[in-house]
Amino acid sequence: MTSLPLTKAQAVLEAAIAKADEIGQPMNIAVVDDGGHLVTFARMDGAIKASIDISTRKATTSVLMNAPTAALMGLVQPGAELYGLEQLSGGLVVFGGGIPLQLDGVTVGAIGVSAGSAAQDVTVAEAGVAALAG
Amino acid sequence: MTSLPLTKAQAVLEAAIAKADEIGQPMNIAVVDDGGHLVTFARMDGAIKASIDISTRKATTSVLMNAPTAALMGLVQPGAELYGLEQLSGGLVVFGGGIPLQLDGVTVGAIGVSAGSAAQDVTVAEAGVAALAG
Amino acid sequence: MTSLPLTKAQAVLEAAIAKADEIGQPMNIAVVDDGGHLVTFARMDGAIKASIDISTRKATTSVLMNAPTAALMGLVQPGAELYGLEQLSGGLVVFGGGIPLQLDGVTVGAIGVSAGSAAQDVTVAEAGVAALAG
Amino acid sequence: MTSLPLTKAQAVLEAAIAKADEIGQPMNIAVVDDGGHLVTFARMDGAIKASIDISTRKATTSVLMNAPTAALMGLVQPGAELYGLEQLSGGLVVFGGGIPLQLDGVTVGAIGVSAGSAAQDVTVAEAGVAALAG
Repeated sequence: MTSLPLTKAQAVLEAAIAKADEIGQPMNIAVVDDGGHLVTFARMDGAIKASIDISTRKATTSVLMNAPTAALMGLVQPGAELYGLEQLSGGLVVFGGGIPLQLDGVTVGAIGVSAGSAAQDVTVAEAGVAALAG
Repeated sequence: MTSLPLTKAQAVLEAAIAKADEIGQPMNIAVVDDGGHLVTFARMDGAIKASIDISTRKATTSVLMNAPTAALMGLVQPGAELYGLEQLSGGLVVFGGGIPLQLDGVTVGAIGVSAGSAAQDVTVAEAGVAALAG
Repeated sequence: MTSLPLTKAQAVLEAAIAKADEIGQPMNIAVVDDGGHLVTFARMDGAIKASIDISTRKATTSVLMNAPTAALMGLVQPGAELYGLEQLSGGLVVFGGGIPLQLDGVTVGAIGVSAGSAAQDVTVAEAGVAALAG
Repeated sequence: MTSLPLTKAQAVLEAAIAKADEIGQPMNIAVVDDGGHLVTFARMDGAIKASIDISTRKATTSVLMNAPTAALMGLVQPGAELYGLEQLSGGLVVFGGGIPLQLDGVTVGAIGVSAGSAAQDVTVAEAGVAALAG
């Protein structure tokens, strides 16, 4: 059984691309299933290459932690409860741009967006999330 | 400078998906630029997950070697000239399914296809190559 | 297609070596193309060996982020926007000494310099950059 | 103490480049010291990118084994004495193109050449070796 069929993942990807176009920031966008395995991906022209790994890892992190990556930032700071978390489980991303994708309250995958500011990445990821819910 | 713009990579990907549908074998399909960096990717419903890495690595191998992956098979056998090549340069794939993408005789990237038999993978990759040339 | 021909990369390398000689600090100097792949490299007599990897990774980081490595330092501190970035995309360097190489406003590669202080590394890298522009 | 000063390594590199030009096969050429650490490197225009790693690893293998890489090929075949050796010590290359560099009978480093046929790689590496002896 596929938690996130390709057609649904593509709808998420296309909505994210449209939002990135709208705000004028080329992005790397990755969509993974509930096992954290890649379903679809696009690097928009001009988006930095470091974000191929970062966007994919944001999506994977969101599945592995079942939480948006932005929620981890406070927890991993020096002195905070999960200091060092970012180097575990193969390398997690702790800044915004990764968000779980849910259907009927069940996590079926995640989207990860990278190449802009963290705020821009979150905005584009949310557009992808909305496309699945819609 | 983008050697392979997203719209061209998407045309390659879509032609490959159409061919995979036609032969009834769900595939993982990766398209990379001339530096071996991922541009776009799709995993069709039912395609095995091991092939996420294999398809991407076939594309990367094709760029790094500037040759189809199928051309490497004979060279790496016991007793052959490049025995052991497959473990070099980060891990190369030596069976069919990766093919360079060229424009005007210049390699601008590569496609990697995996999840079927090697022959099926090559057939689907060739459909992607033809879409760029067309 | 070669984004940065060897003769141009050698001119960058030689200018950097000359500057390192001038300031009396032996350096490791790496020049990569726009895919982050090594084009040429030199380790000057007496330069520390750890900097073989560091100089190369500075150059790769500059390509992957399309920015000087020095620009990343503030962003990855505890509490800052990209905390944890340095461990992503294969390992990025966030201190000075890596700078993109551009021709007509297009990034064609990068230089990475390491073995001195960060300020010395930047000075030598800038001499390399100037040689390409000149 | 530097086992192989940069000026000597550059002479080796330049002789190898000249031979590669002469035979009309662009090459990746790496020169390492007696610790296997890179001293200088060049990728000639048109040489395949996979050979960045392969040339460097041929040089490293030559130092680690204190032998030409071509000498290993027979030893690692199925049924032979060192079957599996190529995956040890971080990954060794067992086909020709890596040769130790010696001064007065002492190994001071190695050259690794890759991108042509194994025979071409050896020819170019030998030109580098001769430059040091000369």
